[in-house]
Amino acid sequence: MGKTVQDYHTQPLLTAAVRDEFWERYIRLAQDVVIPYQYETLHDRVEGAELSHAIANFEIAAGRKTGEFHGFVFQDSDVAKWLEAAGYSLSIRRDAELERKADGIIELIAEAQQPDGYLNTYFTIKEPGKRWTNLNDCHELYCAGHFIEAAVAYAEATGKEKLLQIMCRMVEHIESVFGPGEGRLKGYDGHQEIELALLKLYRYTGEARYLELSQFFIDQRGQQPHFLQQEWEQRGQLSFWGGSRMEQLDLKYNQSHLPVREQTEAVGHAVRAVYMYTAMAELAALTGDEALHQACVRLWDNLADKQMYLTGGIGSTHAGEAFTFDYDLPNDTVYAETCASIGLIFFARRMLMLAPQARYADVMERALYNNVLGSMAQDGKHYFYVNPLEVWPQACSCNPGKHHVKAERQGWFGCACCPPNVARLLTSLNQYIYTVHSDVLYANLYIGSELETELGGTAVRIEQTSSFPWEGAVKLTVHPAEAAEFGVALRLPSWSTGMEIRVNGASLAAAENMENGYRVIRRVWSEGDIIEVMIPMEAHRVYAHPNLRADAHRTAIQRGPLVYCLEGADNAEPLSSIMLSRQGGFKEVFDEALPGGAVAVAAEGWRTEAGSWTGGLYGRERAPRKPVTVRAVPYYLWGNRGSGEMTVWVAESGV
Amino acid sequence: MGKTVQDYHTQPLLTAAVRDEFWERYIRLAQDVVIPYQYETLHDRVEGAELSHAIANFEIAAGRKTGEFHGFVFQDSDVAKWLEAAGYSLSIRRDAELERKADGIIELIAEAQQPDGYLNTYFTIKEPGKRWTNLNDCHELYCAGHFIEAAVAYAEATGKEKLLQIMCRMVEHIESVFGPGEGRLKGYDGHQEIELALLKLYRYTGEARYLELSQFFIDQRGQQPHFLQQEWEQRGQLSFWGGSRMEQLDLKYNQSHLPVREQTEAVGHAVRAVYMYTAMAELAALTGDEALHQACVRLWDNLADKQMYLTGGIGSTHAGEAFTFDYDLPNDTVYAETCASIGLIFFARRMLMLAPQARYADVMERALYNNVLGSMAQDGKHYFYVNPLEVWPQACSCNPGKHHVKAERQGWFGCACCPPNVARLLTSLNQYIYTVHSDVLYANLYIGSELETELGGTAVRIEQTSSFPWEGAVKLTVHPAEAAEFGVALRLPSWSTGMEIRVNGASLAAAENMENGYRVIRRVWSEGDIIEVMIPMEAHRVYAHPNLRADAHRTAIQRGPLVYCLEGADNAEPLSSIMLSRQGGFKEVFDEALPGGAVAVAAEGWRTEAGSWTGGLYGRERAPRKPVTVRAVPYYLWGNRGSGEMTVWVAESGV
Repeated sequence: MGKTVQDYHTQPLLTAAVRDEFWERYIRLAQDVVIPYQYETLHDRVEGAELSHAIANFEIAAGRKTGEFHGFVFQDSDVAKWLEAAGYSLSIRRDAELERKADGIIELIAEAQQPDGYLNTYFTIKEPGKRWTNLNDCHELYCAGHFIEAAVAYAEATGKEKLLQIMCRMVEHIESVFGPGEGRLKGYDGHQEIELALLKLYRYTGEARYLELSQFFIDQRGQQPHFLQQEWEQRGQLSFWGGSRMEQLDLKYNQSHLPVREQTEAVGHAVRAVYMYTAMAELAALTGDEALHQACVRLWDNLADKQMYLTGGIGSTHAGEAFTFDYDLPNDTVYAETCASIGLIFFARRMLMLAPQARYADVMERALYNNVLGSMAQDGKHYFYVNPLEVWPQACSCNPGKHHVKAERQGWFGCACCPPNVARLLTSLNQYIYTVHSDVLYANLYIGSELETELGGTAVRIEQTSSFPWEGAVKLTVHPAEAAEFGVALRLPSWSTGMEIRVNGASLAAAENMENGYRVIRRVWSEGDIIEVMIPMEAHRVYAHPNLRADAHRTAIQRGPLVYCLEGADNAEPLSSIMLSRQGGFKEVFDEALPGGAVAVAAEGWRTEAGSWTGGLYGRERAPRKPVTVRAVPYYLWGNRGSGEMTVWVAESGV
Repeated sequence: MGKTVQDYHTQPLLTAAVRDEFWERYIRLAQDVVIPYQYETLHDRVEGAELSHAIANFEIAAGRKTGEFHGFVFQDSDVAKWLEAAGYSLSIRRDAELERKADGIIELIAEAQQPDGYLNTYFTIKEPGKRWTNLNDCHELYCAGHFIEAAVAYAEATGKEKLLQIMCRMVEHIESVFGPGEGRLKGYDGHQEIELALLKLYRYTGEARYLELSQFFIDQRGQQPHFLQQEWEQRGQLSFWGGSRMEQLDLKYNQSHLPVREQTEAVGHAVRAVYMYTAMAELAALTGDEALHQACVRLWDNLADKQMYLTGGIGSTHAGEAFTFDYDLPNDTVYAETCASIGLIFFARRMLMLAPQARYADVMERALYNNVLGSMAQDGKHYFYVNPLEVWPQACSCNPGKHHVKAERQGWFGCACCPPNVARLLTSLNQYIYTVHSDVLYANLYIGSELETELGGTAVRIEQTSSFPWEGAVKLTVHPAEAAEFGVALRLPSWSTGMEIRVNGASLAAAENMENGYRVIRRVWSEGDIIEVMIPMEAHRVYAHPNLRADAHRTAIQRGPLVYCLEGADNAEPLSSIMLSRQGGFKEVFDEALPGGAVAVAAEGWRTEAGSWTGGLYGRERAPRKPVTVRAVPYYLWGNRGSGEMTVWVAESGV
């Protein structure tokens, strides 16, 4: 019937082992704090935290106890994301206790699965007759997708395939409901996720039918007659949320306004968008579908060149957690949801599978070191859902237009999507460092690590040490099983002005053999060959495109991959009174006192003194400015030293 | 029983006849376009306009026809505001046709009045059993207040008291329901308005009971036990709007969070706030209630010194059409409702009754010449409800946080409060020019006019000619019935740097006898004495208080009372690319081509050229700036030359 795995192009996915002081601290935080803490919240055992009821829902669905379903219709996905993170964690470090907990939950899931393979506690407990009647709102395939991701991660880490079998049965059930065949629904989920998950299942199992089901969902989206529209009309134009009648279904919200190949702009709910683009890109990579590839490039270009914050945040509005339009990137009413940046990293990784272009890795790095890393407090227990680039705490509480922006990280959320998403990204960070095309290994992220793979027909081990993000010294030691010719491509980051490369001590001309932002070194490699890379990392100014109105006449500071910000903890408020000197230099000092230790930047600037102001609310004379030393710290650290103002973009003096 | 009119201080209200080229054009627009147009909309005879159904509701309540109530619960007030404007219009210019129309409506109102005096079509038609059960939401007293204002205006203009009698009967009914007596409600309206209206009724009739009922409503507000809170609990915590249960009643929304004398900050719905402050100030002026006076001063100071836009707009957020907090004045997510600025003008006029302080008149002038005047298109048929200081049209349509801001004036509104409010203000502008304290006449607005009053025991006629807003030449000719001593006080506007004054050709030292912002000239005046005032009117820069974060490092241009703005029609977009030169001068030219003719300002500046930008969305090099001549036009004219960007605040070069 279907094609086999051999019919598709299966690029190897490279998973390194992270050996990096900077990142291991965060990975351990995810392992030691986030995963155990979330396990407790899923079981409603954390005092003061909002009730999750996610495990309780499964216990009820499994018949272990009686009770009502509670939580969001997609509450199950929290359990899935935890299991996925647990899987990655176990792949890094075996942990009998964690494995026992995960096995226990998987046992529970097995009991909650229905005889026909169906798995979803909401529809099992609360609306058993209504399965698959509201794809637009009810996240059934979305939840299934997350369990598939968990199943693959857990199987890869532990070799245990119980959850995988559960999910294969669920997919079989899905295949009986959806698909091109007669009497099957020509539908797809309101919240994309199953598409990318099925591709993971395909890669793990080699079963082409999973790829093809993913392809069906992707191809079906936005086709006429419009499935979600028809479904909505059939249920009397009611929304699941509150059951109220809606004037109109917003098809852009879930990117079903057009067939995916015809889409050219990032629109709608940002997380849904990037989850979909991720699946599209991977599918294009697997199938060689050039039209799909080009659609991905168009969407990428729109997103990265016109709708992305400097921190790698995406989504300019709270309303619908959505993109708005080109160059509309307000810093203070921003959304920039943590999960959306994580999804952007997923998307970037798939684009790197399609084509080795450093610009994809640039965005991946930007989102990782700034928006995503900044979303988590240094204690691993507090999170930003929204990641603003400018905060005035009083406005967050007193101006309703900014109520969605929090000046302090929150404990956990009623819709707790971000913390487990951070956990699963950190514990799978080892998958984002390298990609391979033919016999060239591409180093996308400079993260200390150890990789074992095959290049040029030879088994190769690559050790990477990196002083990122504080210094730009990177060393790759190549250990081929035997001397062999292959390429090693080193990404020249977009923030750098050049890099020095030495192979076994001999300088290479950096400008040579630049291909799409990588310096490609092709040679015969022997045991112990050393590539030394030095990327100058100096604090520098960044400016925004003149059409980006919110950042006009402002500058930001960046150093290496890190975007910097000003905080009230270091600079007198209001921060808006500060102006950086156009000509002034920067002084960079590693400050142990900053959480975890970090390079702080001192800059020359000017500040308007409210004390010298002679007008009322308005006046004819500008208050005099006094020279001041401005202190900037990495954006990812903001809000770890009490509540106060923060800004990434700062006015700059001069014409 | 109650006190008589003699017991209260009844300051004369001075009504001049406007003889002013600039303003008469707008007054005629109100008379010739707005009032006739609104009459048609009230009768649902304007094609394409949203149905009003306001007259139809009265016809149904009057038993002239059958049908359902339609529109807002406060739909009646549109009829009242029209009648009030018609009254003012008739006081300026008799018009048999208009009077016939008004008499017809009054006849209809009489028929709709219930046997017990009650008047409100919503509760008469739709919920007859529910009168006075939801003061918080249902606007019964609010509507009554507007009809009282109409009744007084119409009686003053025409001598016809039919509507006045209707409303006196309604007030009698209200007195039977509300008041200190046993069994009466200790309540007040959710939307303030009746308070200020009853004081007008008191002034017209001399009946102290009307003042005392107003005083009851004002004093009762915010007292414990909390009337609106109790009422809300009694109806099951339901809101009238949609009937949904609310978590909490927002008492700040309608300024009932505290007794009025204890309030210190402008909070909540801005129109409600200023309508209440208006009544408080007038009541304090009438009763000499010093505690109330001080509360008004505190609220004024907070509002004018910390929560007012440069254009005289108030209300920083769409949510609840409300104030937010000190110095929070975002230019693009602004509310600054037209009606709120009109209410601010009402409030300012009452503050001028309490004390002759030029700062009250400064705000009145600011709101009048900018926010209010700008709300109306030059055709009199299109209006802004929200008056932004910065507009990017695409953001208004594509960013939901700005959907409430329109880049173009709209035809009419479902909630059509602003156009009739503009009409009634313009047609009663003659009441805002002068105030009197003892034997001193205070010129608050420089508007060509003719006033007849009594000063120093003598009948006096004062002719004013004014070249405002384009030039600062003002001439007052004094015609006392016989030579008499009294004072004439000339306001030194806050935007001016001084003024020259000549009396019968002889210069006065301008700095002498300055009292609270007025130059007071006390002397014996004889027939034909001439005061010439020259207030230099030059375009100049304005800066905002350093705490006003939205305007940091920016400047605005003002000339005389007019705030200026940049528009896409005159300057290449994005306007954010423009920076004014710190040192550059301004060139002022009267441009006949601008709607109605206006002084445009040319300024030296710099603009960032998007064409010279070498980065992607972000880059290391700032795009070069090129010198450019920037053109600014009066804010009130914005949006009359097609849709485009607009900004009041512009970046400024230099340290």
